[in-house]
Amino acid sequence: MKVLFTYDYGAAVFQQVADLGYDVVYKPEKQLTDADLVGVDVLACYDPFKQLSAAAYRDLSHIILSSTGINQIPKSIVDAGRIAVTHNRYGYAVPIAEWIVMMLLVGHKQLKGLIEQQQQKNWHMRSDLLELSKRRIVFLGTGNIAAQAVKRLAPFEVELVGINRSGRPVDGYQKVYPLADMKAVLATADALVVCLPQTAETLNLVDGAALAALQDDAIFINISRGAVVDEAALIEVLRAGKFRLCALDVVKREPLAADSSLWQFEQVLITPHNSWLSAQRNSRRLVYIMENLKRIIAGQALLYQADIKRGY
Amino acid sequence: MKVLFTYDYGAAVFQQVADLGYDVVYKPEKQLTDADLVGVDVLACYDPFKQLSAAAYRDLSHIILSSTGINQIPKSIVDAGRIAVTHNRYGYAVPIAEWIVMMLLVGHKQLKGLIEQQQQKNWHMRSDLLELSKRRIVFLGTGNIAAQAVKRLAPFEVELVGINRSGRPVDGYQKVYPLADMKAVLATADALVVCLPQTAETLNLVDGAALAALQDDAIFINISRGAVVDEAALIEVLRAGKFRLCALDVVKREPLAADSSLWQFEQVLITPHNSWLSAQRNSRRLVYIMENLKRIIAGQALLYQADIKRGY
Repeated sequence: MKVLFTYDYGAAVFQQVADLGYDVVYKPEKQLTDADLVGVDVLACYDPFKQLSAAAYRDLSHIILSSTGINQIPKSIVDAGRIAVTHNRYGYAVPIAEWIVMMLLVGHKQLKGLIEQQQQKNWHMRSDLLELSKRRIVFLGTGNIAAQAVKRLAPFEVELVGINRSGRPVDGYQKVYPLADMKAVLATADALVVCLPQTAETLNLVDGAALAALQDDAIFINISRGAVVDEAALIEVLRAGKFRLCALDVVKREPLAADSSLWQFEQVLITPHNSWLSAQRNSRRLVYIMENLKRIIAGQALLYQADIKRGY
Repeated sequence: MKVLFTYDYGAAVFQQVADLGYDVVYKPEKQLTDADLVGVDVLACYDPFKQLSAAAYRDLSHIILSSTGINQIPKSIVDAGRIAVTHNRYGYAVPIAEWIVMMLLVGHKQLKGLIEQQQQKNWHMRSDLLELSKRRIVFLGTGNIAAQAVKRLAPFEVELVGINRSGRPVDGYQKVYPLADMKAVLATADALVVCLPQTAETLNLVDGAALAALQDDAIFINISRGAVVDEAALIEVLRAGKFRLCALDVVKREPLAADSSLWQFEQVLITPHNSWLSAQRNSRRLVYIMENLKRIIAGQALLYQADIKRGY
């Protein structure tokens, strides 16, 4: 078996992989071409797909993604089901959950404005700060990331509401509603946290009507994928002054173009898809990658196999 | 009995106070002079003290402070014990605790730098973000505010360490050390949260030696009083580049002078003594003020009587 890594985990790790019985190749992701995949069984990567032609995957039996999302893989490659795809299902839930709590607090405490005041050396106490306590936080998507956020928010004495496809109850929420009720639920939200994977079903799910349903002084947080939100409609409501804070760690096209109007809105906090990042990222994803490399050799069921049809 | 308010709680509230049996007077705090206090038994205020002479307090039997700290009262006025002082002991613990969690997250996630990147329209993913998970957070002072913060931090899976005078154990901390061990404990802190009241004993307690004991990449948060920290020594270590984040909601002299070097350090986040503020501030403090007005009329023991000797 031959495995190709597009991230350099270091000689010690690669030796461990070799000890499992693999031929190990490393090539930086951006340099990967079709020729590199000849004879490769397992590809451990994030997103080399745009550089590869459909023919490149001929010998491949497994793709081990370092990301939680799988939307970067061309569906044509994996639709036939010949290539098994695993994703880093729990690898970033902790740092992203921390990020969500931070942005909820930053929005309630007007921290972006206070930092701008500091830049102007302006000591002016603001009277528009709010407590998180008693506020209604709505999670659109009740998966692993939301679960970690909800766990951390419990002692803040907030009201935690979830929305998922069926409305099935999930631990940690006072109430979970079905997607069919989304607009009515959004109208009651003090804050909305978008936690949905990008799939055919979620594309532009947060559309103009959903944005209109939200209260004007709500807090809007997206830590999942930009494509889940209708960005043109979002820009339109932002232009009208909507939202107390709109914290976007993801946008439709990354990196965000310098001429995008999103950079400039006073109530928008743009971060460069950074919420997942922590010093523990490599050690955590390595645990999952090594486990799957062991299972592939042993012919066992894989850890965190993605559901290609559903898209996550 | 006559009560003078320096904050306008509105006609309905003042009528309720009158119904308790008080003559009610309202005068804005900044306009208060000695003459206004003639015949006044109860003064409900924050800080009119700088404008008043020692003679102004002659008729006064009670001061009901809207603040948690009592350091604004001249000790000469209350030392004799003739005037009972109550303080708003729990009134701001929730918003300040939320603030502490926010600043811990902001420091770990480098949010100040990310907001500066947005201002430059710079989409550059930073690799120096950290998780709160597993970090060692030290609270200098284990009172009500720290208690609320510690409660909120528990699910983040951090290590929570307290320092108080005697080292007596307090719920919520893995370990509490006595003040005598402060420097050794600070040397192990990933983050230090200063939560001490300003008293004769805590003045400049966080001195040059304490600051030197802290790790260079520690996070430093002060939400109590600027006078607890030796500000000249702090500026010196900041100039040398110390601290991952130094979040100061309080400084020695407020408002912070425009020419203070504190405004400009890259790692300093200055906010204008804003952490206590929330939409619930008036309703919460009114509960405590009304309760004490009832007790004064009834001759009952007061709620949250300050210990003048200890200074809180």
